[in-house]
Amino acid sequence: MVNQSIRVEESQSRKNKPDSSELVFGRSFTDHMFVMDYSSGLGWHNPSIIPYQNLSIDPAAMIFHYGQSVFEGLKAFRTQDGDIQLFRPEKNLQRLNHSNERLVIPPIDEEFGLEAIKQLVELDKEWVPDAEGTSLYIRPFIISNEPYLGVAPSGHYKFIIIMSPVGSYYKEGINPVKIAVENKYVRAVKGGTGEAKTGGNYASSLKAQEIVEKEGYSQVLWLDGLEKKYIEEVGSMNVFFKINGEVVTPALNGSILAGITRDSVLELLRHWDISVTERRVSMQELYEAHQDGTLEEAFGSGTAAVISPIGELYWDGNHLNINEGKTGELSKKIYDTITGIQYGKIKDPFNWVVKVGKKTEVK
Amino acid sequence: MVNQSIRVEESQSRKNKPDSSELVFGRSFTDHMFVMDYSSGLGWHNPSIIPYQNLSIDPAAMIFHYGQSVFEGLKAFRTQDGDIQLFRPEKNLQRLNHSNERLVIPPIDEEFGLEAIKQLVELDKEWVPDAEGTSLYIRPFIISNEPYLGVAPSGHYKFIIIMSPVGSYYKEGINPVKIAVENKYVRAVKGGTGEAKTGGNYASSLKAQEIVEKEGYSQVLWLDGLEKKYIEEVGSMNVFFKINGEVVTPALNGSILAGITRDSVLELLRHWDISVTERRVSMQELYEAHQDGTLEEAFGSGTAAVISPIGELYWDGNHLNINEGKTGELSKKIYDTITGIQYGKIKDPFNWVVKVGKKTEVK
Repeated sequence: MVNQSIRVEESQSRKNKPDSSELVFGRSFTDHMFVMDYSSGLGWHNPSIIPYQNLSIDPAAMIFHYGQSVFEGLKAFRTQDGDIQLFRPEKNLQRLNHSNERLVIPPIDEEFGLEAIKQLVELDKEWVPDAEGTSLYIRPFIISNEPYLGVAPSGHYKFIIIMSPVGSYYKEGINPVKIAVENKYVRAVKGGTGEAKTGGNYASSLKAQEIVEKEGYSQVLWLDGLEKKYIEEVGSMNVFFKINGEVVTPALNGSILAGITRDSVLELLRHWDISVTERRVSMQELYEAHQDGTLEEAFGSGTAAVISPIGELYWDGNHLNINEGKTGELSKKIYDTITGIQYGKIKDPFNWVVKVGKKTEVK
Repeated sequence: MVNQSIRVEESQSRKNKPDSSELVFGRSFTDHMFVMDYSSGLGWHNPSIIPYQNLSIDPAAMIFHYGQSVFEGLKAFRTQDGDIQLFRPEKNLQRLNHSNERLVIPPIDEEFGLEAIKQLVELDKEWVPDAEGTSLYIRPFIISNEPYLGVAPSGHYKFIIIMSPVGSYYKEGINPVKIAVENKYVRAVKGGTGEAKTGGNYASSLKAQEIVEKEGYSQVLWLDGLEKKYIEEVGSMNVFFKINGEVVTPALNGSILAGITRDSVLELLRHWDISVTERRVSMQELYEAHQDGTLEEAFGSGTAAVISPIGELYWDGNHLNINEGKTGELSKKIYDTITGIQYGKIKDPFNWVVKVGKKTEVK
């Protein structure tokens, strides 16, 4: 597979690029896309970069009925020198295969997948925006497309990569959000698909999200599906709390997505010799820490916003105001460091950055 | 919406129909399909019956990423008089809207949905097979198709109906299956999407299914996600047990799909004055009933197979042989009665049957 070369069919016309200052998230797409097919027997084949275009899919294709799909999200950043770099892309490809395993989708060759991302970004490199806080969002995904109405793993798949130039998640930089703790709906439970990045997890989250938005909260904080006591993750982010000088985050227990930004935060804190623990964290513990004044900071971590400080947690009638609703010092330092590395403004001691346009070994 | 008429574009060519005796499940599709669009502001619009064809969909369409989709399954039967009739179709449309509500998809007009099914079946009525045990499987489904990479309810949807002539689920009539009780993977948990007919539930089930198939079992029996003690459902069916003359089935607890065949079995048993209870049923209870000889019958219920007797349950090292691996008397009687009503061979005292080609009020 790795030795297969990617067929490239360049677009005859180029689209107008949105103005860097007016970029929103996930609404416009670049000139090209990557597509590769899978069939039982043939394996993954026919890797191609083609003009961005609609897919022609049988209405009986299994993706429309039985939801067998996985995806990833990562970004390409333009540095001040004009270089283009990816942030830990090999982690996304590893996780894609981890999701594939859970969803009974055949694995892809991770090294080849990274090569496909790099070639696609290279071809559409003019789409990597250069305004402060902007980037090119890259969305690899796999869908089942055998036309068959039977509950079984599909015999055909498509691996596709599309890309969208995106603005800073927060127009005015990093800003605290208000989060509501969800007591009724459940995102995932051990033995389910919570660890996998698959469409169904997101579809199931919409209902709770819709309700809390109406009440003025930007996202929900999910509790465990068993006892509804322990914190899992926030909307589409992992979550961290600084309590009495120590940082804690829910341990990966089988129902939490293993965020790549989460992993980067952990590495960074350890690098700085700041105490950080992955363990069970209950809402009761947070409540008590808030009451006795030791809940110092809270923040979410994810690819879209990098670090999203939490200014208020609403739980069971209690409004927990955190750090007076302001961005905490540590949250800001983590944000500045990760984005600094991503944009090549500060040194990368972790080998997180992968340059596009240069051959790079997958770690 | 109800007053909107359906635009019909007939296919210029007709496909060859598969031989009735060689029908399999969900592999061939009729000449036409129904399509209706939804956009925020416009609502559901442009209902059309068109030649069966591929969909042209943006690769950024939300269905490929965030799994917002629902579906239904029902059948049209050809009677000995040549009439075509549906089985409780209004229940499928009700459940579709119930699933829509959970998945934050705008509801459809149920009466109009039934009219669409009837018009489509009427147009493709030659596709309703007439061999013993065959039928036309009807698959209404809704997919989100706004091109947007943000986790939010889609602003555009497609409601589609496709149809497939299908053979008898069991070539040689009703036959007991071997089922393995699943102890590791979980299908659903209260607060999740288990009650909704959405792709994600089926995608998440594939892994466990794949494992037990390799061990010679045809489906898994799911336990509750909280304690892994209580029975939920079998693969894609609800499940019933006859213990010491009484029938029990797991109560609809928020994580079990409310099967229409399940409901029909309950009505039938009550009509026959056979004691039937919807309640929690633990595997331990079943095990003990098996040991003391009171576990008389077990069967699954669903649209595809109607009634599927369970001849063996494998649980935690124990092989529970039920009714000597043979189809139980009651299972057979229920199967004969429901299929008898479906094919118009016996009287329908429940008003379950809806004729195609005649105007019918939705109950």
